[in-house]
Amino acid sequence: MEDEATRLRLVCVAAETFAELGWRDAAVVQVCARSGVDASDFYRLYDGVDDFFVSMYAARADELVASTIAALNEVILSVREGSLVDARDATRAVTRVFAAGALDRTWWILTTEYSLRAVRHPEVATSYIAARQEMRKGLGQAVRHALEMAGLDELVDSDRLVQLATAVHRGALADHFLEPGQVTLEDLDHLAWLALIDALT
Amino acid sequence: MEDEATRLRLVCVAAETFAELGWRDAAVVQVCARSGVDASDFYRLYDGVDDFFVSMYAARADELVASTIAALNEVILSVREGSLVDARDATRAVTRVFAAGALDRTWWILTTEYSLRAVRHPEVATSYIAARQEMRKGLGQAVRHALEMAGLDELVDSDRLVQLATAVHRGALADHFLEPGQVTLEDLDHLAWLALIDALT
Repeated sequence: MEDEATRLRLVCVAAETFAELGWRDAAVVQVCARSGVDASDFYRLYDGVDDFFVSMYAARADELVASTIAALNEVILSVREGSLVDARDATRAVTRVFAAGALDRTWWILTTEYSLRAVRHPEVATSYIAARQEMRKGLGQAVRHALEMAGLDELVDSDRLVQLATAVHRGALADHFLEPGQVTLEDLDHLAWLALIDALT
Repeated sequence: MEDEATRLRLVCVAAETFAELGWRDAAVVQVCARSGVDASDFYRLYDGVDDFFVSMYAARADELVASTIAALNEVILSVREGSLVDARDATRAVTRVFAAGALDRTWWILTTEYSLRAVRHPEVATSYIAARQEMRKGLGQAVRHALEMAGLDELVDSDRLVQLATAVHRGALADHFLEPGQVTLEDLDHLAWLALIDALT
């Protein structure tokens, strides 16, 4: 119980700290100082800074998968109830979820910093890559389920759709934060999902 | 003439140095030391480290635009000569250029580092953003010209196509370097271009 509270205190300040100071300078000691947690407690709970990041990432990924499932379920429900729903409505619902979860500058900076770390030091990146794959697997299952409900599962390769859509999303985010106002993230995502579904069918 | 040689010496070591040490630690002094250039010469040639980066970026962007134009001209020529060319061939030619210029890990690390800097410090990012827009403008003109030749320019918004395609490309690159082998950059780009042309028409 107390461990849960400690974890929460660390997570609450960590993203901000890393985003502000950069991966290198925002050492564990900084995060501990700002959250009032003893370094020895940090190292009892986590294997190190990489383990800590991946556990934060996995928690966010679980949230994203859960909200995607919820958004898709709503679409499925609307179809069953006979409300008019076409592919455009369905993809709009999904991209709204993606956009809502994404418009967090701090989180974008943190994950981009960590991607750089992972590319520079592939030896520490194994669990991050596993967490990314786990997230895509979760999204793939949710999308496949929705496509089954729509009778489209034979036509669209849901894993490939998710792989492409998450890549588009990542690129759109960079443009969004670099040139605010130039790109509307949700529109870009939406167009990409529609286009990808089109191209993959 | 001598200034040109000095610039070249700086540029040759700069990308590697920044990629290896990170934006923060690879200060101008490091780049100068490694290239044997006096810091006073650096500051005579460039307004500072941001000006230096943007001038490297703009040079690469010019190359990318030039090779895209060349690739598109080849496609246009094949069409005129009556060789069978469909949209798939045309986009394949363009994405080959994108992929060839992109599979440079050092450059990806450097531009990603700089994107983080630009998002953290928008006040230094103005000329970087202008250079990005200039590149998209160049690509847009090349694509528009090719679409005119193909009689498709009324159907496709070339600026929007380029905006989306460069965003896709940026996201695909991150996946490519993080999970080598999982994503084939050229395939992903190609699928995206086809899909985008489809969706935008």
